[in-house]
Amino acid sequence: MTELDRSEVLRLENQVCFALVLATRGMIALYEPLLEPLGLTHPQYLAMLALWEKNPRTIKDLAEALQLTPATLSPLVKRLEALGVVDRRPSASDPRQLAITVTEAGMELLDKAATIPGAITERLQMDSGQLLDMYNILHTAIDAERRALDKDTP
Amino acid sequence: MTELDRSEVLRLENQVCFALVLATRGMIALYEPLLEPLGLTHPQYLAMLALWEKNPRTIKDLAEALQLTPATLSPLVKRLEALGVVDRRPSASDPRQLAITVTEAGMELLDKAATIPGAITERLQMDSGQLLDMYNILHTAIDAERRALDKDTP
Repeated sequence: MTELDRSEVLRLENQVCFALVLATRGMIALYEPLLEPLGLTHPQYLAMLALWEKNPRTIKDLAEALQLTPATLSPLVKRLEALGVVDRRPSASDPRQLAITVTEAGMELLDKAATIPGAITERLQMDSGQLLDMYNILHTAIDAERRALDKDTP
Repeated sequence: MTELDRSEVLRLENQVCFALVLATRGMIALYEPLLEPLGLTHPQYLAMLALWEKNPRTIKDLAEALQLTPATLSPLVKRLEALGVVDRRPSASDPRQLAITVTEAGMELLDKAATIPGAITERLQMDSGQLLDMYNILHTAIDAERRALDKDTP
């Protein structure tokens, strides 16, 4: 590699990973004022989306949906419990297991939450074709990353 | 909005923000084993890329390159200093200001670092067209996010 090639390869602005970090950070910043009335951070919002879709569910099941380890997810769920939007009760199917259930207060957030995706799209002023392209290419990357990471696991 | 529309709009899997979070997390996980021999985390690596490109530079200038606030960047630079890869010296142009300088040990990481972008591309097995598409659409999103966030600032 020549010096010139090397400086191009290592240029911060050229890194796809840097673009991912910036795009994610900017997107989360856009959600912040919209999530404030719900009292949720962005990771908590994602967890609530998964729970509104299906609850009660075990921590293991929720961790799979969010693609986190149960250990990483556990403090987040404890904060949601402290906020009063979920609680943990013995599971109906297996009473030795605790299942996460959305409380009445958690269900009451649903009306406000339903306005957020539209508000984000409006704030972004990206057309739906661009958003769909981004969604698709990100999922191509997610699949490629997963295949590469799976190879690491013996 | 009907119940069905609402459940589609709020479906976790449909969220572009969730795709961004997953793609960024997966990408950083791919870097981890490659950065380990350099002793750097991914945010530290991004800072070193900016510094290899140009140093000495002030914390304000580096913060602009990384699109972080100086307050957020400061602890990261302190860790790089503790690792011995940068130091802070009075700036030649303004001796009252400290400038961040890459040390000899920091320059020695450059050869290893130069192999990383290629190794990532190889691990990902995405073709260069796909990576370029992703890079371009992410920058469209970054610009759109910046415009939207600028509107928040009075």
